Amino acid sequence: MRRTRFDDWPCPIARTADLVGDWWTPLVMREAFYGCRRFDEFQAALEAPRAVLAARLKRLVEEGMLERHRYLDRPPRYEYQLTAKGNDFWIVLAAMWRFGSDHLWEDGEEVPVVLRDCETGAVVTPAVVDEHTGEVVDGRRVRMSLRD
Amino acid sequence: MRRTRFDDWPCPIARTADLVGDWWTPLVMREAFYGCRRFDEFQAALEAPRAVLAARLKRLVEEGMLERHRYLDRPPRYEYQLTAKGNDFWIVLAAMWRFGSDHLWEDGEEVPVVLRDCETGAVVTPAVVDEHTGEVVDGRRVRMSLRD
Repeated sequence: MRRTRFDDWPCPIARTADLVGDWWTPLVMREAFYGCRRFDEFQAALEAPRAVLAARLKRLVEEGMLERHRYLDRPPRYEYQLTAKGNDFWIVLAAMWRFGSDHLWEDGEEVPVVLRDCETGAVVTPAVVDEHTGEVVDGRRVRMSLRD
Repeated sequence: MRRTRFDDWPCPIARTADLVGDWWTPLVMREAFYGCRRFDEFQAALEAPRAVLAARLKRLVEEGMLERHRYLDRPPRYEYQLTAKGNDFWIVLAAMWRFGSDHLWEDGEEVPVVLRDCETGAVVTPAVVDEHTGEVVDGRRVRMSLRD
């Protein structure tokens, strides 16, 4: 049975869910941010079944999140690089990082990992704010509305 | 075939992907933020197959994102309310909103919806910053590292 598609719904959350709504896709993007370029690097990092990984990479290339470049002619070999659109997907991974860090470890168990700035080594703690005011956004205080 | 589980991986992104990594779950949470409480309200808003919706609500209750309250005894009827943990999931939806708004409409096509503050009516534009510095986080400038 074909799944319901959300990629033409008039809601940005729905369209993004359609793009990343499976368990592997955000992790493939995570590895792209951590420096994976070649199929075997993604495969070694994620231990994903090869067919699953190939399908996810193909979709991400089709969606313009990754670009495929040939780095060897004989035999032909490709690597995957983040596009500008792919780079902007970081915002979603950063939010997942924060939520997971805050809520998906047992009480009293310390999250073993942190994000650090590559240059300064400072710990980075993602938060979602309103770009206009810098204030933290409370989901109970906003509503979706038609653009004027 | 059972899918690979990520809920015990040592990465907050992986654990969150395990929780929300299907197309319906973020949308069910979206509707909870928009005020849906009862099964039929979720169903009417999403037009999700009833069995799919029931399974997603059950998982979200098990995970502590929603709480089920009985609001009618005969016949027994329940409603679903966001928990504190569920409220914190807003950060992920807000990031999806921003990415989708920026990238998932055709060039020249205007996104028909915006987020507004319920009280002031001001447009809210989610951005991810570092909580310590208030600076926008660039995914290429951070790395995952073990906590000291």
